[in-house]
Amino acid sequence: MRYVVLVLLAMTSTQVFAAEKLLGFDEDGSTAQRALESRFDQHISADEQTEWLRRLSARPHHVGSSAGKANAKYIADLLKSWGYDVEIAEYQVLLPTPETRELELLSPGHYTAGLEEDSLSEDPSTSVRDELLPPYNAFSTDGEVEGELVFVNYGIPEDYETLKRYGISVEGKIAIAKYGKSWRGIKPKLAGENGAIATIIYSDPGDDGYAAGDVYPVGPFKHESAVQRGSVMDMPTYPGDVLTPGIGATRNAKRLAIDDAPTITKIPVLPISERDALPLLSAMGGAVAPLEWRGALPITYHMGPGPARVRMKLKFNWQTVTAYNVIARLEGNEFPGQWVIRGNHHDGWNHGAADPVSGLVAMLAEAKAVATLARAGQRPARTIIYAAWDAEEPGLIGSTEWAEDHADELKQHAVAYLNTDGNSRGFVSIGGSHTLERFFDEIISDVDDPQTGVSLKERRKAALTVNADNDKEKQEAARDTLRLYPMGSGSDYTPFLQHLGIASANFGFSGEGESGSYHTLYDTFEHYTTWRDPGLRYGVTLSQLAGRATLRLANAPLLPFEFSGFADNVAMYVDELESLANSMRDDTTTRNQQIADGLYKLALDPTKPLRPPEKQEPVPYFNFAPLKNALLRLQEAAAGYDEALAGNGRPSGTVNELLYTSERLMTRKEGLSGRPWYKHHIYAPGFYTGYGVKTIPGVREAIEQRNYAEVGPQIEIAASVLQQVAERIESLTSMIAIGDN
Amino acid sequence: MRYVVLVLLAMTSTQVFAAEKLLGFDEDGSTAQRALESRFDQHISADEQTEWLRRLSARPHHVGSSAGKANAKYIADLLKSWGYDVEIAEYQVLLPTPETRELELLSPGHYTAGLEEDSLSEDPSTSVRDELLPPYNAFSTDGEVEGELVFVNYGIPEDYETLKRYGISVEGKIAIAKYGKSWRGIKPKLAGENGAIATIIYSDPGDDGYAAGDVYPVGPFKHESAVQRGSVMDMPTYPGDVLTPGIGATRNAKRLAIDDAPTITKIPVLPISERDALPLLSAMGGAVAPLEWRGALPITYHMGPGPARVRMKLKFNWQTVTAYNVIARLEGNEFPGQWVIRGNHHDGWNHGAADPVSGLVAMLAEAKAVATLARAGQRPARTIIYAAWDAEEPGLIGSTEWAEDHADELKQHAVAYLNTDGNSRGFVSIGGSHTLERFFDEIISDVDDPQTGVSLKERRKAALTVNADNDKEKQEAARDTLRLYPMGSGSDYTPFLQHLGIASANFGFSGEGESGSYHTLYDTFEHYTTWRDPGLRYGVTLSQLAGRATLRLANAPLLPFEFSGFADNVAMYVDELESLANSMRDDTTTRNQQIADGLYKLALDPTKPLRPPEKQEPVPYFNFAPLKNALLRLQEAAAGYDEALAGNGRPSGTVNELLYTSERLMTRKEGLSGRPWYKHHIYAPGFYTGYGVKTIPGVREAIEQRNYAEVGPQIEIAASVLQQVAERIESLTSMIAIGDN
Repeated sequence: MRYVVLVLLAMTSTQVFAAEKLLGFDEDGSTAQRALESRFDQHISADEQTEWLRRLSARPHHVGSSAGKANAKYIADLLKSWGYDVEIAEYQVLLPTPETRELELLSPGHYTAGLEEDSLSEDPSTSVRDELLPPYNAFSTDGEVEGELVFVNYGIPEDYETLKRYGISVEGKIAIAKYGKSWRGIKPKLAGENGAIATIIYSDPGDDGYAAGDVYPVGPFKHESAVQRGSVMDMPTYPGDVLTPGIGATRNAKRLAIDDAPTITKIPVLPISERDALPLLSAMGGAVAPLEWRGALPITYHMGPGPARVRMKLKFNWQTVTAYNVIARLEGNEFPGQWVIRGNHHDGWNHGAADPVSGLVAMLAEAKAVATLARAGQRPARTIIYAAWDAEEPGLIGSTEWAEDHADELKQHAVAYLNTDGNSRGFVSIGGSHTLERFFDEIISDVDDPQTGVSLKERRKAALTVNADNDKEKQEAARDTLRLYPMGSGSDYTPFLQHLGIASANFGFSGEGESGSYHTLYDTFEHYTTWRDPGLRYGVTLSQLAGRATLRLANAPLLPFEFSGFADNVAMYVDELESLANSMRDDTTTRNQQIADGLYKLALDPTKPLRPPEKQEPVPYFNFAPLKNALLRLQEAAAGYDEALAGNGRPSGTVNELLYTSERLMTRKEGLSGRPWYKHHIYAPGFYTGYGVKTIPGVREAIEQRNYAEVGPQIEIAASVLQQVAERIESLTSMIAIGDN
Repeated sequence: MRYVVLVLLAMTSTQVFAAEKLLGFDEDGSTAQRALESRFDQHISADEQTEWLRRLSARPHHVGSSAGKANAKYIADLLKSWGYDVEIAEYQVLLPTPETRELELLSPGHYTAGLEEDSLSEDPSTSVRDELLPPYNAFSTDGEVEGELVFVNYGIPEDYETLKRYGISVEGKIAIAKYGKSWRGIKPKLAGENGAIATIIYSDPGDDGYAAGDVYPVGPFKHESAVQRGSVMDMPTYPGDVLTPGIGATRNAKRLAIDDAPTITKIPVLPISERDALPLLSAMGGAVAPLEWRGALPITYHMGPGPARVRMKLKFNWQTVTAYNVIARLEGNEFPGQWVIRGNHHDGWNHGAADPVSGLVAMLAEAKAVATLARAGQRPARTIIYAAWDAEEPGLIGSTEWAEDHADELKQHAVAYLNTDGNSRGFVSIGGSHTLERFFDEIISDVDDPQTGVSLKERRKAALTVNADNDKEKQEAARDTLRLYPMGSGSDYTPFLQHLGIASANFGFSGEGESGSYHTLYDTFEHYTTWRDPGLRYGVTLSQLAGRATLRLANAPLLPFEFSGFADNVAMYVDELESLANSMRDDTTTRNQQIADGLYKLALDPTKPLRPPEKQEPVPYFNFAPLKNALLRLQEAAAGYDEALAGNGRPSGTVNELLYTSERLMTRKEGLSGRPWYKHHIYAPGFYTGYGVKTIPGVREAIEQRNYAEVGPQIEIAASVLQQVAERIESLTSMIAIGDN
C-alpha cells in the first residue's frame, strides 16, 4: 500500500515538473523540448548497449593495441553510419610499456613476486590475454634498486608526518604503500621527494578485497592476484603526452627529450597484488604501524625499515604510439559556431568493460538517438561533437592533446564539455562547473531511477536524508537543489575545464555496484553485467541523463547557465578557507604550546618509538577582505541575473557567447603557481592529492602548505577572478534586461 | 634541557602540594600524615612484589584448585607474620568445571575444534598445566545441540536490531559472537532471549590478536590458540554463588536447586580461539556482514544462517567447592568500630599473573608496610581489613558471599571499600563513589609516576589534554580535579557498593601495557614482567597510591568525604538523561517519518537484503522536575558543607558515622526493578551491558529500554534518594558548624 502511494507521489511530482519551464527555454519551448526528449528516450535500447559492451570489451584495448585501433574504427564507423561527420584525430604519444618487471624479497627468507593475474574458468574473458599489458604503472622511470622496505600507509603527506614522529625515514629505502586515499601518482612523487629509491603500491584486502566483500568470481571484489594498473605521471603538474606540454602531440610537434619530461616519476614504481604483498609485509619488522594504518592482511603491520630487503628491476619500452580520438560532429542548424562537446574515452587498461566501455556505450546510444532525431527533422540548434578519446588511462592523453591542438577554436566555440567515464548502479553523481548546477537539477528531476521509479533527484535526496549523520550532512540533504561536486581530475574533462576554461560536467551512477575490478584483468563483460549493472538499466538511464544535458544545451535559445548556484558554492569555499586558516592557527598554537609544556612527552609511552610532533610556524591572520568583497559583488550580480531571467527577457545577439565564455574568466594565462598548465582559479586537482579537488586552489594550497607569504597575493588573484565574473554577469543582466524592453 | 626544566617544575609542584592541607586533617595532621606516608613508601619493594608475583602465579590457581588453596594459605601466613589477625573465611560455592567440550563443523567440510591452548617453549609457565581448567565459560548450562551458525557480531542489543533489518533470526540457530564491547555474559543472555540454541564466543584478531599488535611470545597480543575463559552467569541479576542469592553460602545455608538458579545461562556457551573460529566462519554464507561488524580474519564475514552447520556438546561437573577468602584485620587504636576495607582477589583462571596477582602483590606490599608502621607505633586510628578474595573469576563469589554473610556489621562499620584487581603500566585510572572524588584527587597529586617523575595527576592530565579530540574531551581535560569514572561491575567492589551501599573505589594503571593475555594460558609471570610492567615499577606506585588511600581513610579525624564532586557528577548524569530522552525522541520522530515517507526504501539497494527499520513508539516528554529539584537541593547542601569545612569546624561525635553512611542513603531496600539484589540508585551495571555502568540506572534503563511508563516513577525514586542524601549533608553541615563554635 505504501508503495502505491509513493508511485502516485512520484507521478505527481513528475507532472508538476513537466509543467515547469526549463532554464533557457520559454514555456512553449520547454514543452517542445520535453516532447523531443520523450522521443529520444524511445531510441535508447539496453540490448544494443549490451551488445556494444560485449564487443568493445572483448579484448584488451589499451592505446597502441590492435584492439584499441579496431575499437576506434568500429566506433567511427557506427557514428558515420548514423550520419555524423567523423574524423579520427591521431596523435603520436609516448607510451612506456613494460619489458622487465622483477621483484624479489632477498631476506629474511626469499620470495619472487609472481606479478601476474590468474585466468579464471568462471570468466572466459580473463583467458583472452592477447596483447595484455602486464600489471605496471605507466610513466614509472626505469631502474634497478635494492633496499629495505618502509611501510608508508597510503603514502600521502600526513603519513610522512607520522613516519617522522616515529623517527623513520624512507631515505635510501623502498617505500611500500597501499593503494587508496589519493591518486596513485602522489605515492611515488612523495616517496621520491622524501628520498626513497623506489615505490611499491599494493592493493590491501581491507580496501577492496575480501574484507570489503566476496571476491571475484564469488562476488565483485578484488581477487588475490588482481593488480590495479594505472598511470603515475605527475598529472597535477600537467596531464597528456609527457613530451608535449601545452601543445598537441602532432607528428611534427616539438618534443621534450624523455629525460627532460618533468611528469615522469623520479623513482621506479611497481603495483602488486595482495598475494605478492603478503610475503613482503610479513617479513617486515620495526615499530608496529599505528592502528589506522593497518590493513586486512592476517599479519601485524610493521613500519620497518627492513629487515625485509627487496630487489626490484623495471625496464620499459619507451615507444611512441598513435592515439586515435574519434571525433563525430553534427552541425547545428541555428548556431553552428556554438559547440556542445560530449566525450567518454574508449581505451581500457585491459578489457575495460566498466572502465570505460560502460560509459562509452551509453554515449553511443545517445549519439545514435540524437542522430536519428536529426534525420527525422529535429536537428539540434547548436553543433554537437561526440568524442571517444583514446589514451585516457595513461594520463588523459587523447583528450588533452586534442584540446591543446584545438585550443583557440575551442575557447571560441565550446559551450560546454560533458564527460562520462564508465558507469555503475545506484545514485546519480554529478560534478562540474557550478554555473550548470541549476541546469542539472532540472534534468535529474525529469529522469527516473530504473530500480525505484522515482526521479533521480528524489532517490538521491532520500539517500542523503537517510544517511545524514551530522548537522552538515543533514543541512546538505535538506538543500532544495542538487549540489554539484567540484571537480579535481581523473578523467577527460580536465583539459577542457582546467586548461581552457570551458564549463564542464562529469556524471554517472554509483553506490550500489562497488567492485574491486578497477584497472585489473577482471574488469570484464561478465563482471560488469553480473555485479555492476545487470541488464544495463543504468546504462539506459545514463543515456537519458546525458542526452537531456546535450540536447538542452544544444537547443536552449538562452544558454542555461546560471550564477546563484555558482555564487552559493563559492561562498562556501570562501568560508572553508577562512575556517581552514582559523583552525590551522588554533591547532598550531595549541599544539606548539603543548609541545612547549612537555605534555606530549608526558602523554607518550616512553618505551615506544612514537615521539612528540615538531613545533610548526604559527599561522598568521590573513586579509580575506578582497575575496569577500568580490564574493559580495558576485552574489549581487548573480541575484540580478536571476531577476532579469524571471522578467522573461529575450537574449540579444551576443548574450549566449558572453554566457558560455564566462567560465573562461575564471582562468588566468599564468596558471597556478608552479604548474602553469592549470589555469582555472576555482577548481584544480590538488598538487598533493592528485584527483582530489582543491577549490580556489591558489589560496587553499598556499594555506595548507604553509606558504604564508603566498596567501595574500593568491587572495588578490582569486578576488580579481571573481570580480571579472561578476562584471560579466552584470553585463549579461543589463543585456537581458534591455532585450526585455 | 627541556627535561631538566620539567623535573624542576615537578619538584616545585610537589612541594606546593606538600604544604597543602589534606581533606579531613588539619595542618599539623596533614604534615604528620604525609610524613607517615613517606615512611610507608620506604617499605615498598619492587623485588619483593616480583618474588610474590613469581610464586603466586607459578601454577593455575582457580577456586577449588590445590594451588588456589595453597596460595590462600601462603597469603594468610604472610599477613599473620606481619601482625594481622587473620581468618580464612570459607564458603561452599557451586563451581561447574568442564567434563565434555566438543565442537565440530559438520558441513560444508568438516572440522573438529581443538579447544586447547598451545604450550610455548619461550614461556615455561605455559607448560605448567597441572589442574589447568581448559577453556570454558563458567555457568554455561549443559547441552548438546546441532544447528546452523548465525554471526551476531558482538551479540549486543544493537546487533540484534541490525540482524532484524537483514531479516535474519537466531531462532533455533547457534549464535557465534565476537568477544568484546560488552561483558561476555550478555552474549548468551541475548542470544537465548532471541531463541538461539547455543552461543559460541571467539576472540577476533581484530580486537586483541595480530591486528592489534605482535602476538605472544613475539609481542603481548593474543596467540592464535588462546581462549578467553570467563564467567557467563547473569551477574547483572545478582553476582556471587548462584544458589544463595542475598545470603552467605555457608555450609548450612538454604540453597536453590541448580535447576532453579536464575543466573545460570539458558543455553550452552563455549569460548573458542581465533584458530578454531576461522574454519567455522569461513564456512558461513548468507549476507555479507556490515562493514562495522567485520573482524580481522582473512575472510569475508557472512551473517548466515548457515550453511555452516555445527554440533556442540557441553557437560559440566556441577560440584561444590570451598572458596577461601583471606581476611586480615588490624584493629584501629582510636575508632576500632570504623572499618576501612581493602581488597584484591587471589584466584586466577590460569596462572593469573596479571589478573589478579599483579594487583594482589601490590596490596600485600601495602599491608606489610602498614603493619610495619603499626609495629613501630603508628597504628591506624581506624580498623583496616585486608581481604584477598577467592572465586572472583566465576562471578565475584568470594567477596559477595562474605559481604552477604556480614551484611549487617558491614553496613554499620564499613567506612569504605577500596578495590584493585590486577595492574598494568601507564596512566592512573580511578572509578568510584563520587563522595571520594576530591579525596583521590589529592592522592594522585602526591604520588609520582615512575616513568616520568611528575605526579600521577599531571601525567594523566597531559594525556587527556594531548588526546582530546572534541569539545567534550577538551572540557574534561581542562577540569581542575580528577573525575572518577562511575562503576558498573566486573570486580569485587560490586557487593560492597551496589548491594550494601558502602562507598567504594577501584583503581590501577593502564594504557601502556595492553595485552591479549586476559583469562588465557598466557597470563603468566613471563608475559607480565616482559610486556605489562617490567620491574613492577607500577606495582610499587600502586602500593603508594592504595596505601595513601587506606591510611588517610584510616587516620583522618574527619572522614574525607565531600559532596560537591558528587553533586557535580550527578548533575552531569541528570543532564545526560534529559539529553538521552530528547535525542531518542528526535531520532524516533525523524526515523518514523522517514520510514513513513518511504525514504529508506528509496535509499536502500533493492538487490540487497538490508530492509528499512521498523517504526518505534514515539518517545513522550517526561517530568524531570523532581530530579532537578532534588539535584538543586543536593548542590546547595554540598556547597554548604564545603563552606562549613572551610570554617575549620571540628567534628562532633557522630559526624564520621553520618558521613560514611551517607552512601547507604543512595540505596533502597527494594533494589532496582527486576533485580532486587542491586540496591544502589546512582550506580549499577547495565542489565544489557554487564560490566558497563548505568548511572541513575532506574531512570536510564527505563528510557533506554523504552519502558516509558516506568520513567516517571523511577524519576521519583531517584529524586527521593537524592533528597535523602541532601538532608544528610545538611545535618552534617549543621553539626560541623556547631562543632566550630
